[in-house]
Amino acid sequence: MTSASTNYQTVDIALGARSYPILIGPGLLRDSALLATHIAARDLLIVTNETIAPLYLQTLMTSLGDRRIETVILPDGESYKTLETFGHIVDVLIDKRLNRDAAIVALGGGVVGDMAGFAAASYQRGIDYIQVPTTLLAQVDSSVGGKTAVNHPRAKNMIGAFHQPRAVIADTRTLSTLPDREYRAGIAEVVKYGFIHDAGFLTWIEANTAALNARDDQAVMHAVRRSCEIKAEIVGVDEREHGLRAILNLGHTFGHAIETATGYGTWLHGEAVATGMVMAADLSVRLGWISPAERDRTVLILQRFGLPIRGPAIGGQRARELMGMDKKVLGGKLRLVLLRQLGRAEVVSDYSTAALEDTLHDHFG
Amino acid sequence: MTSASTNYQTVDIALGARSYPILIGPGLLRDSALLATHIAARDLLIVTNETIAPLYLQTLMTSLGDRRIETVILPDGESYKTLETFGHIVDVLIDKRLNRDAAIVALGGGVVGDMAGFAAASYQRGIDYIQVPTTLLAQVDSSVGGKTAVNHPRAKNMIGAFHQPRAVIADTRTLSTLPDREYRAGIAEVVKYGFIHDAGFLTWIEANTAALNARDDQAVMHAVRRSCEIKAEIVGVDEREHGLRAILNLGHTFGHAIETATGYGTWLHGEAVATGMVMAADLSVRLGWISPAERDRTVLILQRFGLPIRGPAIGGQRARELMGMDKKVLGGKLRLVLLRQLGRAEVVSDYSTAALEDTLHDHFG
Repeated sequence: MTSASTNYQTVDIALGARSYPILIGPGLLRDSALLATHIAARDLLIVTNETIAPLYLQTLMTSLGDRRIETVILPDGESYKTLETFGHIVDVLIDKRLNRDAAIVALGGGVVGDMAGFAAASYQRGIDYIQVPTTLLAQVDSSVGGKTAVNHPRAKNMIGAFHQPRAVIADTRTLSTLPDREYRAGIAEVVKYGFIHDAGFLTWIEANTAALNARDDQAVMHAVRRSCEIKAEIVGVDEREHGLRAILNLGHTFGHAIETATGYGTWLHGEAVATGMVMAADLSVRLGWISPAERDRTVLILQRFGLPIRGPAIGGQRARELMGMDKKVLGGKLRLVLLRQLGRAEVVSDYSTAALEDTLHDHFG
Repeated sequence: MTSASTNYQTVDIALGARSYPILIGPGLLRDSALLATHIAARDLLIVTNETIAPLYLQTLMTSLGDRRIETVILPDGESYKTLETFGHIVDVLIDKRLNRDAAIVALGGGVVGDMAGFAAASYQRGIDYIQVPTTLLAQVDSSVGGKTAVNHPRAKNMIGAFHQPRAVIADTRTLSTLPDREYRAGIAEVVKYGFIHDAGFLTWIEANTAALNARDDQAVMHAVRRSCEIKAEIVGVDEREHGLRAILNLGHTFGHAIETATGYGTWLHGEAVATGMVMAADLSVRLGWISPAERDRTVLILQRFGLPIRGPAIGGQRARELMGMDKKVLGGKLRLVLLRQLGRAEVVSDYSTAALEDTLHDHFG
């Protein structure tokens, strides 16, 4: 209950009976009144990890006030985003005899959110779920869309569910403790929203590079809000990911190949996406969709946030194999998200295979 | 493609975009045209078990015609309805590189259907699913409601999802190979629909006991159809199980205690439900809701199908503990489904605890 609570913005996700708000601002974790308004359940399981727990768990528990609160603290890292860890969360739910009216609170980044969300989706066929994302990536990506999942040893996010949260509490002040590399990886996704859907936002990002790099409260709040709005606009049109929503995967098909080849967690997701977006821009140039100058602008924006722009030397053939396992394969044909212009992405499957192979060869060779 | 295909009935489950038909009749597994109409996917994974596979897998595959068909044959039994077996199905989906446009066909009883359905619900966050139930229980219970799940070692159906099938193909001729005990256990659920919602159906059952015990085609087809209709009527009012739908659990709270105490699979589910319905009738008499004569009629109907009417001697205290873990506990208070009259069940939580304890003592003592 601090004065900081007055400084926040809300993005309303309109999904009929499953509508929910995303609250964005500095210091929300300390705002008991706000938490009381948006978290109704009396019995909670907070799922977090060993990195986040020492930083924010006690603060959150104190702000949640007089309820029954159980906790499960997972090891940190994508390598633990497995069916086994999911099973462990369910074991705790059962051990603590949490019922259908209990809710799961995910305190952490995307890995925690994905697993806690899948546990909430599956426990007794679905209980309530509140996201408290503490990474920039999670605030701008996991907050919208209702995706939950765990990885399979051979492919990411293969096991999961669509399960909308009741609320997302994005305390932007938690980003102050993010390692620089992780913060920048989150910026890659922010920039992505500009590339795929909003040239004006891209221009705003270029004008506010310094403020974003300094993690300025107002700049970060605007970046998170606008990112969530853009994602909501796209997901609202296509909740179950049959068409337009796939443009959100700009850079992801290439990026997944990088992450899989190097082992989950070696490259951060956002880093792989940044490099993947450069590859998508490169292929878009080869297809004559955007100009070399626009590709260079793409590269420059990412570089100014210290993001990688070149893939690991795994070879073009290996990259193709890895992309063949990607979910975006439809009936055996690899669909890709490319840039029709900066600010407009499209899903295509009728591109030149030779151009794709040249891109893979140049970047992975 | 036999003349038998002309003899079937359809129950349409109306759920907007997720509507689907239940097709009920003898010989449907051999009806290629009907299968082609209702199973659109070109790539299929048939999930079945080692008991059903030798009986019906080849017939089904032949009738499905020219498609890509992969199979996974599970060990038979509720004890394999685990997160591990679910993981195995997912492994096969990934090994075979089945994509989002593939569908899972569940050929078997409720255990196969629950696991295959949960795999379909979770694989890549949801793919199509067709049920081909080969037990009476699965035909009258799993066909409606979209419930999928696996068990946790300490409680049944704790991990799952609501995932509606695209179609249910209930070939009543497959019941001819059902062991007598399993067939009778299915009848317990048929009778349940009469108890909870349709006194007229109960009277029809009493008049057709001999035909049902002889597995007469027309009697079975009517029993399956009317059961599905009643369940659909109840589920249609309350898809996500917040209120009325709970009456479908008549006998189940007591029954789960029996199943858990004796170990999954020792008592068949329908047997436990039959005994549980006797206990619910007994408690209903103690509360003055139904007469002792109506309780005796309940017992007699079940006995005429050779169903058990008395629980194992686990003791009343142990039964209470086991029921405390049941999902029907709401905020610490055990809700029970009882009979207001034969043909009308109600969910109650304001019954006399002493009457419940007397019932448990009498039946489990």
